[in-house]
Amino acid sequence: MPGEFNLIETYFSNQQANRDDVVLGQGDDCALVSPPADCYIAISTDTLVCGTHFLASACPADIAHKALASNLSDLAAMGATPAWVSMGISMPEVNEPWLASFCGAFFELANQHDIQLIGGDTTKGPLTITLTVQGFVPIGQALTRGQARDGDGIYVTGTLGDAKAGLDIILKTRLSMQADINQTLEKRHYRSTPQIFAGTQLRGIASAAIDISDGLIADLGHILSRSQRGAIIDTEQLPISNELLHFAQSDILARQYALTSGEEYQLCFTVPQQHQQKLEQQLAGIPYSRIGQITNSGHIVLHEQGCEVDWELAGYDHFKDH
Amino acid sequence: MPGEFNLIETYFSNQQANRDDVVLGQGDDCALVSPPADCYIAISTDTLVCGTHFLASACPADIAHKALASNLSDLAAMGATPAWVSMGISMPEVNEPWLASFCGAFFELANQHDIQLIGGDTTKGPLTITLTVQGFVPIGQALTRGQARDGDGIYVTGTLGDAKAGLDIILKTRLSMQADINQTLEKRHYRSTPQIFAGTQLRGIASAAIDISDGLIADLGHILSRSQRGAIIDTEQLPISNELLHFAQSDILARQYALTSGEEYQLCFTVPQQHQQKLEQQLAGIPYSRIGQITNSGHIVLHEQGCEVDWELAGYDHFKDH
Repeated sequence: MPGEFNLIETYFSNQQANRDDVVLGQGDDCALVSPPADCYIAISTDTLVCGTHFLASACPADIAHKALASNLSDLAAMGATPAWVSMGISMPEVNEPWLASFCGAFFELANQHDIQLIGGDTTKGPLTITLTVQGFVPIGQALTRGQARDGDGIYVTGTLGDAKAGLDIILKTRLSMQADINQTLEKRHYRSTPQIFAGTQLRGIASAAIDISDGLIADLGHILSRSQRGAIIDTEQLPISNELLHFAQSDILARQYALTSGEEYQLCFTVPQQHQQKLEQQLAGIPYSRIGQITNSGHIVLHEQGCEVDWELAGYDHFKDH
Repeated sequence: MPGEFNLIETYFSNQQANRDDVVLGQGDDCALVSPPADCYIAISTDTLVCGTHFLASACPADIAHKALASNLSDLAAMGATPAWVSMGISMPEVNEPWLASFCGAFFELANQHDIQLIGGDTTKGPLTITLTVQGFVPIGQALTRGQARDGDGIYVTGTLGDAKAGLDIILKTRLSMQADINQTLEKRHYRSTPQIFAGTQLRGIASAAIDISDGLIADLGHILSRSQRGAIIDTEQLPISNELLHFAQSDILARQYALTSGEEYQLCFTVPQQHQQKLEQQLAGIPYSRIGQITNSGHIVLHEQGCEVDWELAGYDHFKDH
């Protein structure tokens, strides 16, 4: 490959540890990998487009982190252990400082999770990044969306709402008066932590799981629709950070952020009563909260101080104006 | 998923046969697949960008065929049998006739090769398609680029040069006087046939293989560089279609097209002398030609009527002006 492609190849091939199960990495027509026995392979693909998922002015390290974290989050939601990632990236020009920053953050997160870049394609075009991640999950232990049952508790990891507040700050539609809070929330928008460990700990315990990428209401909705169930959410139980509370200046608004904030990459999962004790053991040290219960109603009901409330809330749809 | 996303999901999920090894297809956080024992998984990713790899005016069925065919071709070059494909696609708007045409051609080719779409991501953005294909190859039988040895014959499947002539016709930089020849060559540019069967038949016979995506000179160059070898090519042995000969109006020009035509998706492979007879048996019924021999020179020498010729030829680089 002549010219500047060599440069790109150098950036994408020289920064990572090698896994034993990668027989042949980048540089041939295909990568060759050796899958483990007794596991299924979990596979997920996410595309990030400049102008749709991030601003052209976004820091390349933030873009890289977000791209990989959002994909790892899908593995987490399945209870899978990360293994391999492929990248298709188009960019308008070869920009060395941009590449250095992008690759630095990408491989930092990849190496944290022992996931190896096994190949991809770099082309000229509008900035777009598509990752396909693969991981392993023992046969019969994958966390799917379809097995939530009446009475199961509904849980989320971490806190919710910060990513949406961060987006408001990036787009300048709403700001906190405190610069450090703006900074923290903006960082949380780009730099979420995929809940890989929590996902693997939930194997055999959770009846259903999903990662929160479109907002809690929308994503819990996917579980309910696949499980043919409904839910009651106690909005007072929604886990909210001090920063979000300060930003929103009101409990109600903070809770509405928590219910609709996309790109959180926390897990939402359901657990039958009989696994309650096991849950506490398995998630010891991981922040998580019980926020409600699965019902047979077929829809989501929000409770606030024991009473039903009717808030106008929606998920996120790329082809809707927003 | 509200709104128009449902529509897209329908197009991408309702047109194909299901493989037994796909435990969970589209619709959860990840697909789950069950890999075979005694095989490696071959994985390849290709990105096609509107304006770089095809014109905005291109027929959506042609775009879909080209996207999947170019990816399947990478599996062919590895000797792999296709299994699963993931798609990241961004498009500026939801256009039903466009989607219907795109999906029709995509699933026609996918079903021909028993490869199942197991998931992906659809986003709003400039038209870009990234596919990650996966296939199986028995352990120890993958065709790589690095094992060509002195004296091995160099071969290609099919004919070469038509794809470049087709591109000239699409871009109107050169046309044949005959409309039917223009049509045929344009079709060959978009509608190449991935050489999956040839690839699997070459397991255990070819010492090295690659698919011709950047042009014979550039792609044979990858084999030579990985194998640390050189090559003599007898340009008179290059397989050229009647249509290309008519289009080029000169043997020399037709041969130059054959040497540099990208996106051919034929295979270039090397075979040691002792596998010559086996090759004839294994490729019976598949068009292929011997075009030269591996040497220890470290570079490519072109022969024409027994004499060395010095043509100015180059591969294709997306970041070079062209």
